[in-house]
Amino acid sequence: MNILITNDDGIDSPGILALASALKEIGSVTVIAPDRQQSAVGHALTVSAPLRAVPFHRDGGLFGYAVNGTPADCVKLGVSTLLDQKPDLVVSGINHGANTSVNVMYSGTVSAATEAMMIGLPALAVSLTSFSLESDMSAAAKYAKQVAGSMLTWGLNNDTILNMNVPAISPDEIKGMRITRLSNSYWDDSYDSRKDPMGREYHWIVGTYQTPESHDIDTDDGAVRNGWVSLTPIHYDLTHRKEVERLKTLI
Amino acid sequence: MNILITNDDGIDSPGILALASALKEIGSVTVIAPDRQQSAVGHALTVSAPLRAVPFHRDGGLFGYAVNGTPADCVKLGVSTLLDQKPDLVVSGINHGANTSVNVMYSGTVSAATEAMMIGLPALAVSLTSFSLESDMSAAAKYAKQVAGSMLTWGLNNDTILNMNVPAISPDEIKGMRITRLSNSYWDDSYDSRKDPMGREYHWIVGTYQTPESHDIDTDDGAVRNGWVSLTPIHYDLTHRKEVERLKTLI
Repeated sequence: MNILITNDDGIDSPGILALASALKEIGSVTVIAPDRQQSAVGHALTVSAPLRAVPFHRDGGLFGYAVNGTPADCVKLGVSTLLDQKPDLVVSGINHGANTSVNVMYSGTVSAATEAMMIGLPALAVSLTSFSLESDMSAAAKYAKQVAGSMLTWGLNNDTILNMNVPAISPDEIKGMRITRLSNSYWDDSYDSRKDPMGREYHWIVGTYQTPESHDIDTDDGAVRNGWVSLTPIHYDLTHRKEVERLKTLI
Repeated sequence: MNILITNDDGIDSPGILALASALKEIGSVTVIAPDRQQSAVGHALTVSAPLRAVPFHRDGGLFGYAVNGTPADCVKLGVSTLLDQKPDLVVSGINHGANTSVNVMYSGTVSAATEAMMIGLPALAVSLTSFSLESDMSAAAKYAKQVAGSMLTWGLNNDTILNMNVPAISPDEIKGMRITRLSNSYWDDSYDSRKDPMGREYHWIVGTYQTPESHDIDTDDGAVRNGWVSLTPIHYDLTHRKEVERLKTLI
C-alpha cells in the first residue's frame, strides 16, 4: 500500500513524524507537507504563485518534501506531479489540536483529506486534542495505523472521508474508538479590540468554543471529552436535494 | 432589511459595487470586504494576526470597510464587532468567475456565505462566469436583488446557503433562473514545471476544468452554459449518517 502523508502544522511537526513512523509499518510512505504552519487555512489553493518542493531531512535521512503551500496544494501537487504513481491512501495529520464539529470547515488538516477525495483517493484526517508539541502521540499513531490499515476494505463512498480525533490523555486511559457524527458545537465569536500607538483600532480573534453536546458520546466532541477516539464519516455531496425540489416550486 | 455585503475579489472590485448598488434598492446595506484579492482562499480564517477595518471611499462617499483578512474574517468580524446589530442577510459577490460544482470547496465567495450560515444568518453567494473586470454585471445584480428580496420568505434551513451563478452573456439572452444541483465537474490537475535560473524546479498550477454534465440544465454548470442563471441550495450537514450506522458494524 502506497500512502501519501501530509498535514497543516508543517513538515517539521512532531505529529507528522509520529504518523509517518506508524504508517511505515503497514505501507510505503511518502511525506509531502507544508514547509510551515498552515492552521485555519481552510481549503485554500495557491494559484497566483509557483510551488516548490524541496527535500526535507530528519534524523539524518530524507523524511519527505516540504512545499511552500497549503495542505490542499501538497495533495494536488504530490498526486499530479511529484509522485510516480497515485497513492492508495492519503492520511493527513497528526494535527496538534482537535478538528471536530464546525472546525472541519476551517481545518487545513481536513482539507488535505477532502482534496484527496476530490481526486478520487480514500483519505483519513487525524487530530489530537492538544496543542502541546510535547503531547504523547502514541495513541493517535496507533489508531491512525489501525484505521489506515482497514479502511480500504470498508468500501467507503468516493464522496466521503474519515475524520479521526484522539483525546490527549494517557494511552491506557482511552476507552476505544467510536463512530460518531459531527457535534453541534459552535464558536461564540468575539474580537479583542485594541488601539495601536497611533490610536488606530485593531482586532484579535478570541472565540470561545461551545459544546452543548459534550455529554453525548455519539458526537465527535462528546466522544473525545469522554475518553474515546472519535471517527466520523464526512461527506461532500453538498447539494441539498430536498431543497432543490422545494425551491423549484417557489421561484 | 439590513444586508451585509462582502466578497473575495476585494472591496475595490466592480462586482461588489454592482451588488451594493442593486441591494440598496431593497435594504440598508453595509459593505465589509477584504482590502485585496482573496481568490481560492477556501474557508480560511486569520487567527495569528490582528485584523483592521478601515473606511473605504468610492465616488466621493463612504462605500464600506476594508479588512486585511479573508471573506470569512469579514463576516465574523463584521457581525460580532463592527455592526451595531446582526444583519438579516449576508450576500457575497458578485464574484468575477464561476463558483460551480467542486469550485465551491475552494471559493472565498462561497466561504463568506458559509461563515454567515455558521453564525445563524441566511446567506447568498453570487458569481458571474467571467473573469473580465469589464463584464456586464447588470444581469447578476438583477437576479441577486430578486433572490435577496425573496429568500427570507422561503424558509430555508439554517444549515443551507444559496449559491448563484450567472452566465456572462448579454442580459437579454438570459433564459431565466433555474434551481440546480452541483454538477459533477472536476479539475484535471496538472502543474507546469519549470527551472529557475539557478536550476531549481518550481511548479505553476494549470488545471483544466472538465464538465461532463454541461448538457444537463438541472446542474449548475449545465444551466450557466446554456444561458440560465443557476441557483443551488448547498447544505453543510456533513456527517454521512448512513455511513455512521454501517461503520459501527465494521470497526
